[in-house]
Amino acid sequence: MKIPILKLHDCLLISIQWELDDETALQFQEDLLNKIYQTNARGVVIDLTSVDIIDSFIAKVLGDVVHMSKLMGAQVVLTGIQPAVAITLIELGIKLNDVHTALDLEKGLKKIKMELGE
Amino acid sequence: MKIPILKLHDCLLISIQWELDDETALQFQEDLLNKIYQTNARGVVIDLTSVDIIDSFIAKVLGDVVHMSKLMGAQVVLTGIQPAVAITLIELGIKLNDVHTALDLEKGLKKIKMELGE
Repeated sequence: MKIPILKLHDCLLISIQWELDDETALQFQEDLLNKIYQTNARGVVIDLTSVDIIDSFIAKVLGDVVHMSKLMGAQVVLTGIQPAVAITLIELGIKLNDVHTALDLEKGLKKIKMELGE
Repeated sequence: MKIPILKLHDCLLISIQWELDDETALQFQEDLLNKIYQTNARGVVIDLTSVDIIDSFIAKVLGDVVHMSKLMGAQVVLTGIQPAVAITLIELGIKLNDVHTALDLEKGLKKIKMELGE
């Protein structure tokens, strides 16, 4: 089953609401990049509110997809990162230094609109 | 796997991007009603853009969930209904007369905001 990607104006919204297995994560990476290409999206909000735990592979895929999206010209905001997920990301050395984050989807969309100068 | 339900301001957004089996559809119905209750959502947009075909059971569940959501006080807009899905719905006698529809997610959100008097 694929992770749904919603298009709203020139942003893509993704809410990950279950634990990802490796295959789904890679599929998501490919789908997102294709969707950015198809829709000319300028912003991507990935909401992780419902993700409680994350393993090293998923963390890497997530870090990669953020940087890949940026290469394609889309700003990415990660929202709703839980404490345990934040701890895991840092402990795994995935710093996401230059990635914007926000508390929830609303704030993420606001942030992306600000970034895009709207 | 559950269908993700995104909360954006006082609306819930759902994009169904694969063919639903009966169990997932019923689970979705329950999840959506619970989420409306938890979040006090006033509007629901269900995007069916990626749904090509629909069977009688799923059509019934979908019709039911629209009316249930209304009972709970949330306006529902269905968006992106494909020709084949529209044909199936009518042929099955599921008229959804009093249900608002729109071409895509953006227009659906706009419609719901109008309905809610914003």
